[in-house]
Amino acid sequence: MATDAEEACFEVGIKFGSLYHQFAGTPVSPRSAASLERAIEESIENQPHCTSVSVEVLTGELERALADSPAEYTELTGRFLEAEVVVEYEGTEAVARMAMEDGYPLMRLESVE
Amino acid sequence: MATDAEEACFEVGIKFGSLYHQFAGTPVSPRSAASLERAIEESIENQPHCTSVSVEVLTGELERALADSPAEYTELTGRFLEAEVVVEYEGTEAVARMAMEDGYPLMRLESVE
Amino acid sequence: MATDAEEACFEVGIKFGSLYHQFAGTPVSPRSAASLERAIEESIENQPHCTSVSVEVLTGELERALADSPAEYTELTGRFLEAEVVVEYEGTEAVARMAMEDGYPLMRLESVE
Amino acid sequence: MATDAEEACFEVGIKFGSLYHQFAGTPVSPRSAASLERAIEESIENQPHCTSVSVEVLTGELERALADSPAEYTELTGRFLEAEVVVEYEGTEAVARMAMEDGYPLMRLESVE
Repeated sequence: MATDAEEACFEVGIKFGSLYHQFAGTPVSPRSAASLERAIEESIENQPHCTSVSVEVLTGELERALADSPAEYTELTGRFLEAEVVVEYEGTEAVARMAMEDGYPLMRLESVE
Repeated sequence: MATDAEEACFEVGIKFGSLYHQFAGTPVSPRSAASLERAIEESIENQPHCTSVSVEVLTGELERALADSPAEYTELTGRFLEAEVVVEYEGTEAVARMAMEDGYPLMRLESVE
Repeated sequence: MATDAEEACFEVGIKFGSLYHQFAGTPVSPRSAASLERAIEESIENQPHCTSVSVEVLTGELERALADSPAEYTELTGRFLEAEVVVEYEGTEAVARMAMEDGYPLMRLESVE
Repeated sequence: MATDAEEACFEVGIKFGSLYHQFAGTPVSPRSAASLERAIEESIENQPHCTSVSVEVLTGELERALADSPAEYTELTGRFLEAEVVVEYEGTEAVARMAMEDGYPLMRLESVE
């Protein structure tokens, strides 16, 4: 049998995989970043045991990418995204974050308690 | 060589396929429907030649589906979605719509002119 | 600090959320089910710490759904999918499964050891 | 009313938008490229009016991307993908292709006849 802490970690992992693979590839520009942030947060917060989701689309990073480009938008990837998800399972809270590290988007457990 | 009207139809088709397959599967509830509508509209409007996108998540239909269910959310499918996309290509406008017909979500060209 | 078991549960959760939200909505028929199974398995097995993924698209269930329908395909949802994912993290193995239960696709931890 | 040629162009556009936004973001490596190609082809061929789909995941380009990276896989984007889709609508055939051009993945109508 899994412990409540393990279940909480499983659940917060599901939310992160969902968040990333549902929305990666979405056309995004500095102008549309705010509505996408809101939609990602509210959609993932629907999932079971999910207490809160906070998403930042990195508009500065978008602007840098678009400065070198003839296009006015790009596709959402981990390079443009920071997110924090909080899950509560039977009284145990698990928090995970995604952010760039050494050029790679890394998902990591922040705390379980 | 394709005509401008054919190019406009190609472009509006791309927008519809993108819209549907990017967002199908997103967790959605009556509470989160409005932010998802806005994000779909603004993300697809980023795409080339796209003049306007208008999306309605059918909250009445969501409520009916959830009334029979222990869950408080479901996943976005064509059953819960109506959308209209307008594209302009070299002066030719193509309009397409998606709506349920006989129990199936149908995408169709409305006008090309 | 999270334990190795908690990290393993987080990782197997990520794989499940990824698997489901990357591929939900894919057009699928009894004829194309086998290639989709293979692609889901091999793509998710690329992810870090993932030892094995086994996916079954339920062709019997697909056939039942299509029998009532004018269409020859449908979209992949949890109703048509069973999956098992195994992750190993620093010597701890976590196994999770997704299957229908009371009409709902449920993801659950099977073992952590 | 749209002509058959315009409908064919609309339909081939839908297939391209579907193909791209369903599968963009999929974890992919040189080892898993072949199963992903097959699944993309067979899933999109399910869609109405679709005669054939041929997809190439550019394993050479994948290898170049991974050579600079600690990871052994990446996510599918237009950089790693070439595709051709053929649609027939009431006797009119429309062919479209996606390939990189000047560093951008471009979808274009090849022929309508």
